[in-house]
Amino acid sequence: MRSDSALFGLDNLPYGVFSPSATPGERRLGVRLGDAVLDAGAAARAFGSPHHALLSAPTLDPLLAAGRAVWSAVRAELREWLSAPAHRETVAPLLRPLSAVRLHLPFTVADYVDFYASEHHAGNVGRIFRPGGPPLTPNWKHLPIGYHGRAGTVRVSGSPVIRPLGQRRPAEGSARPGFGPSERLDIEAEVGFVVGTPSTPGRPVPLTALRDHVFGVCLVNDWSARDIQAWEYVPLGPFLGKSFATSVSAWITPLDALDAAWTAPPERDVEPLPYLDDAGQPPGGLDLRLTVAINGETVAEPPFASMYWTAAQQLAHLTVNGAHLRTGDLFASGTVSGPTAGERGSLLELTWNGERPLELADGPRAFLADGDEVTITAWAPGPDGERIGLGEVSGTVRPAP
Amino acid sequence: MRSDSALFGLDNLPYGVFSPSATPGERRLGVRLGDAVLDAGAAARAFGSPHHALLSAPTLDPLLAAGRAVWSAVRAELREWLSAPAHRETVAPLLRPLSAVRLHLPFTVADYVDFYASEHHAGNVGRIFRPGGPPLTPNWKHLPIGYHGRAGTVRVSGSPVIRPLGQRRPAEGSARPGFGPSERLDIEAEVGFVVGTPSTPGRPVPLTALRDHVFGVCLVNDWSARDIQAWEYVPLGPFLGKSFATSVSAWITPLDALDAAWTAPPERDVEPLPYLDDAGQPPGGLDLRLTVAINGETVAEPPFASMYWTAAQQLAHLTVNGAHLRTGDLFASGTVSGPTAGERGSLLELTWNGERPLELADGPRAFLADGDEVTITAWAPGPDGERIGLGEVSGTVRPAP
Repeated sequence: MRSDSALFGLDNLPYGVFSPSATPGERRLGVRLGDAVLDAGAAARAFGSPHHALLSAPTLDPLLAAGRAVWSAVRAELREWLSAPAHRETVAPLLRPLSAVRLHLPFTVADYVDFYASEHHAGNVGRIFRPGGPPLTPNWKHLPIGYHGRAGTVRVSGSPVIRPLGQRRPAEGSARPGFGPSERLDIEAEVGFVVGTPSTPGRPVPLTALRDHVFGVCLVNDWSARDIQAWEYVPLGPFLGKSFATSVSAWITPLDALDAAWTAPPERDVEPLPYLDDAGQPPGGLDLRLTVAINGETVAEPPFASMYWTAAQQLAHLTVNGAHLRTGDLFASGTVSGPTAGERGSLLELTWNGERPLELADGPRAFLADGDEVTITAWAPGPDGERIGLGEVSGTVRPAP
Repeated sequence: MRSDSALFGLDNLPYGVFSPSATPGERRLGVRLGDAVLDAGAAARAFGSPHHALLSAPTLDPLLAAGRAVWSAVRAELREWLSAPAHRETVAPLLRPLSAVRLHLPFTVADYVDFYASEHHAGNVGRIFRPGGPPLTPNWKHLPIGYHGRAGTVRVSGSPVIRPLGQRRPAEGSARPGFGPSERLDIEAEVGFVVGTPSTPGRPVPLTALRDHVFGVCLVNDWSARDIQAWEYVPLGPFLGKSFATSVSAWITPLDALDAAWTAPPERDVEPLPYLDDAGQPPGGLDLRLTVAINGETVAEPPFASMYWTAAQQLAHLTVNGAHLRTGDLFASGTVSGPTAGERGSLLELTWNGERPLELADGPRAFLADGDEVTITAWAPGPDGERIGLGEVSGTVRPAP
């Protein structure tokens, strides 16, 4: 494992929001370099940046709304401030150790949409719940299936996750549903895309316009209560099985840091409709290598490059009906699962619906136990063989009330 | 039909946000009385109200967040200002004719949840799409089914609705989905509940606490593209078939105005789990009489009193998993349909999936045509045989781009 300094070098520079330990009520915009956080507002003032107002805001919202040209200009400034030897003395006092700050949800989540874009994940779910039938529903290869989640319960990495109460399917022979703490609490390792520039109501966003709208990427753990979900989801989809918590990384990696990570998505065996057809476009997949750990033990390494539907296709689909984007919209990929058993991004798949528990150091795990800490990390190829780290998303399960 | 003055008297006093025609960029908080709008901020300043800051805001958000005691105090002030003869001269210049203002979306929608709480509606949908099977899914009588919609496309009454583009199921014999403007654009006549006071993360809200959290009620038209929805919704529920537009009335009627409208919900033939059991509670249904008109012709009169699941039950269910409420959360009832054919709140049911078109003055209608204007109105019993009007929700269909 490389050091964090190598994963969060000058070619990365993700954005977040922090409080200094001494003044926990304050919110400042920060940029990560190695194991340090640059106070971006203070730096902008020190260097007389034209973007000092954006960078002095208590959230990323104004920067997100400022648009692509400003994103590039700010990134160029940051690289200059953090690399030019002449600036070293100015910058040094504005860098704080990560250990001396608290990180916050860095932007206001407008709408949260969750997709279902991994063929391996959707296929595994189909094989588990509809054995004998075709693993994918008939629409799956024609559109990136998605649904709206609860924006209000998106929280930053490190926030605890309280095991949800809820109904589950009546036990064999009973007419009454069960009720209580979820017995099948699960994770979903995902990648999220954060919208900066809004779009116009009524105007679909073409898949070539991803980078005009999307500011950056975060890691997402879309915690899921499988027993609640299984009972409630017909016919209107997941609701309480998902809405109790969605964790996101504290750091948003700008798309500009991922230039070397674009890769061709898997070959499409069904021709997409024109608004989803990316043949002839630059590669729309992203080579992000995820790692899922429970209490420090790696349980899966899901490869984002294996996702069938790309972020650009998800964006085009999301808006094809005229729904517009707002600054702060978050859309996540759905569980990232690769073709092999060790690449699955949910316990549902890793334990095959609990039938084959994982053997962890402290015992077997079909689903999550109270006290379990789940951490998702990822890296992407950067320039010259470097690695670009994504901020981790982590959370510990607390018992139901 | 009674005059608007009778429907919007002193016992009603709904809240909205308006711009004076002369200064369209301004936003002011307004209270409706008859066909006039009181400039609430100006009145608060004129009378030296302790709530002048809340009432001078450009949205209802601060008032919503202020909580139940403030809602009651402000309402008492408004009634005093608008009724005492001594105040007449002060108030008169602060009242503007409705025709001289433009109305706006009155609050920031946080999360939007749509329920499915009418047994008649859910049953009709079941009979249409799963003929021969049981009309309700096995979970329906055990929980108020719901899902999250798109908060960003909630818009105020009077906003046009652009016919969405989208995929539909492949035609018989074709492997490729159809694509184009929806051919089955529909309405859903609903009642929405606007959350004021937030709740604590991880703490379910009991069904006795509705009035501690919910500020008021609006009318909702949850526009639906049935062809898009039918193709996309398995397995994760409705998405693009709904997300293009949801219209809400410009006026939010405070729950305090609906004291005389509470009524017992239909008898439950399945005993609800304890967190949903309202036996022994004051009646949780609301006697709101809706009218749906297309181009001025009444096509349905859905009775909200016939809803199986109450707003209090919806709130208790929404939060039972620990999901918290935020100021501005909007939860809608789902289509309001009564037991008889003239009481159905969607064209899907009124025309039985297009098989029996409505005969309107300008021709038959299976689903909505471009140019159709849909208006939903409602009233509730008030004190002493009065009627309390809800603000209308109206929208005109514009052709697809």
